[in-house]
Amino acid sequence: MSQPGKLGRIAELQRRLGRAGLDAALINLSRDVFYYTGTAQPSLLALTQKDYRLLVRRAPDFVRRETFLPGDRLADGAGLGQALGHLREMGVGSGRLGLELDAVPATLYLKMARAFAGFELADVSPQVLQQRMRKDPEEIEAIRRACGIMHAGHLRTLETLRPGMTELELAAEVEYAHRRGGHEGVLSMRNFDFYISRGPLSSGANLLEVSGFADTVTGVGLSPAVPAGPSHRVMAAGEVVIVDIPTCYQGYHCDQTRTYCLGEPRPQVRELFAKLLAVSDRTMDRLRAGVTCGELFEASLAAAREQGVEELFLGLEPRKGNFVGHGIGLDANEPPILSQGSDFPLLQDYALTIELHLTHPEHGAVKLEDVVLVTEDGCRMLSQTPRELFVVPA
Amino acid sequence: MSQPGKLGRIAELQRRLGRAGLDAALINLSRDVFYYTGTAQPSLLALTQKDYRLLVRRAPDFVRRETFLPGDRLADGAGLGQALGHLREMGVGSGRLGLELDAVPATLYLKMARAFAGFELADVSPQVLQQRMRKDPEEIEAIRRACGIMHAGHLRTLETLRPGMTELELAAEVEYAHRRGGHEGVLSMRNFDFYISRGPLSSGANLLEVSGFADTVTGVGLSPAVPAGPSHRVMAAGEVVIVDIPTCYQGYHCDQTRTYCLGEPRPQVRELFAKLLAVSDRTMDRLRAGVTCGELFEASLAAAREQGVEELFLGLEPRKGNFVGHGIGLDANEPPILSQGSDFPLLQDYALTIELHLTHPEHGAVKLEDVVLVTEDGCRMLSQTPRELFVVPA
Repeated sequence: MSQPGKLGRIAELQRRLGRAGLDAALINLSRDVFYYTGTAQPSLLALTQKDYRLLVRRAPDFVRRETFLPGDRLADGAGLGQALGHLREMGVGSGRLGLELDAVPATLYLKMARAFAGFELADVSPQVLQQRMRKDPEEIEAIRRACGIMHAGHLRTLETLRPGMTELELAAEVEYAHRRGGHEGVLSMRNFDFYISRGPLSSGANLLEVSGFADTVTGVGLSPAVPAGPSHRVMAAGEVVIVDIPTCYQGYHCDQTRTYCLGEPRPQVRELFAKLLAVSDRTMDRLRAGVTCGELFEASLAAAREQGVEELFLGLEPRKGNFVGHGIGLDANEPPILSQGSDFPLLQDYALTIELHLTHPEHGAVKLEDVVLVTEDGCRMLSQTPRELFVVPA
Repeated sequence: MSQPGKLGRIAELQRRLGRAGLDAALINLSRDVFYYTGTAQPSLLALTQKDYRLLVRRAPDFVRRETFLPGDRLADGAGLGQALGHLREMGVGSGRLGLELDAVPATLYLKMARAFAGFELADVSPQVLQQRMRKDPEEIEAIRRACGIMHAGHLRTLETLRPGMTELELAAEVEYAHRRGGHEGVLSMRNFDFYISRGPLSSGANLLEVSGFADTVTGVGLSPAVPAGPSHRVMAAGEVVIVDIPTCYQGYHCDQTRTYCLGEPRPQVRELFAKLLAVSDRTMDRLRAGVTCGELFEASLAAAREQGVEELFLGLEPRKGNFVGHGIGLDANEPPILSQGSDFPLLQDYALTIELHLTHPEHGAVKLEDVVLVTEDGCRMLSQTPRELFVVPA
């Protein structure tokens, strides 16, 4: 049915255009262009339901050696007038034209609206992002490699985390291990203003401080200018530390969280973590192809209730999260969102995180996040780090 | 004339709204909100020419301790309906409404166009970015601190760079030093799709490979997914290495480039660097308040001509750059752009980079970039690293 390999991705998008009533589309965002072509160089992918061309804006030498598209599909020049000419040559001079409206800024949108005045502009991002949910073997392998880089950061944490260190000093060690492990050095989010540091890291009293950028354990950052991520706070014996810094390999992310204790944790912290692990296990037990996001959320909530931690589940009011994980791939956080009330069904080969935390007003927070792959009858763990509460010498 | 200190920033923007014929504005992007309020938490800054309010979307606890605005200017809730209500309460229910159209994605723009149907929407980013060009003493101090962090990365390069190391391994060392030095861990660009690693790093044969994201020495990246920045290339004795990884302190960036040799460079490389330094010196000699961007470019080009390196200046055709530096502040690259033909005048207290490179088809590239502050009769160096060709043991 579909063309073999990555070339089939364009044919699949063309089918999706048809189902969505879109006559053509222009794919602009470099991550999306990369998915369909193999190159992330500044280009426009112009598609009709039957034809396509990659319009190369710059660096054609890079594009030619990177892309998996046949050479005769490449054209020089990606100006809007040129793009219009190509669409017409492919037989589409009017109708509904899809753009990535969640990513393209208003200035560019308005320019495109003038250049494509004969078209009705529509959002093509849902089609792209829904297609991207299902990962092929090569994508799964890239995510698995990103999880391997993540594990190197975990090992570095075990090696270096000690009382007297600041959150930033720990982050520097983790990021150093990630980078040496092959992390691409980007944290991609489908959000024009996701303005945090390289990833959350938080300890002690900061565990209860939730910055506005996410309903999770965020850290407070180094300054109000970038108010999430590690701070200059000195970590002390007996405290809990949560490390949640994503990695990226060949464009694909791993997003994983582990909780550490500086010396033997209080019994209440051990107990909280045991309950969190039980809730996470139960959530994963419920996961399989066909389950909806909302059903998974309810399974997780029911497990929290059974463990007696419903009030602590996903944080304290008024900053309680309403999701138990999210899709992961070319963006660290992409559809589907495993949110309460969603009837969106999870299918085989979706890569997801299961992301849960418990926040206690007195004992702080514990968090556990893993990357899994949905299978026909369950899920497969892609994270490589043991799922336990780690204790380092204090 | 203007209110003292940072509170005067809002009054200045209100004057600019008046001059631009804008009746009101909604500032959305967290970096811009931070500039005017002291907090980067998700919020909307609603202004008329005479009044203003900060509409807080999330994390009011963070906002209250971070902002320098009086408490009575804060309001809970930043929904678009609420924003409309506030504008009306401030006496503006129609007219021209400024939004940051270069940053706001089309989906949000279209939502706002519906919510503010009584208004004509216009771009307020030019007003914001022009105001931000002139730095006050606190901003200059933050940039100076970012330059100090940059210098720590340079010292780490001198300590660690040796033949046999990969570009990525060197980047990991530089980034580690930056992070431990207090780098916020962000690289802010006013570009929705600036998809590179943490900054360019390139060596040997890669110096001639210019990725599509910038007309400079970019590096080729770890994979086509993020095709700029350090690669897995092993660096060898006799090669040139260019390091151009920006830093950030309290939201403000330093963007500086230095060129290194693994062992004694070829005489031609020494000569190229001497010429580059002469061109850079001449460019800085010409810089003072009142000079236009275009005049500075011409001074630089004339110096390159005198040195006999016009063909190598800013790269080789067809990837020759057309600017000799750019503004720097809350974005690593912000107006003014020191570009050919621009009659935009440079004023006192603008923070700029002077960014120059020479690319030789046989001997590779050399690059030098510094951060300077425009003064009444010249410029002041903010970069702290000596401006020389650095030779490490090979």
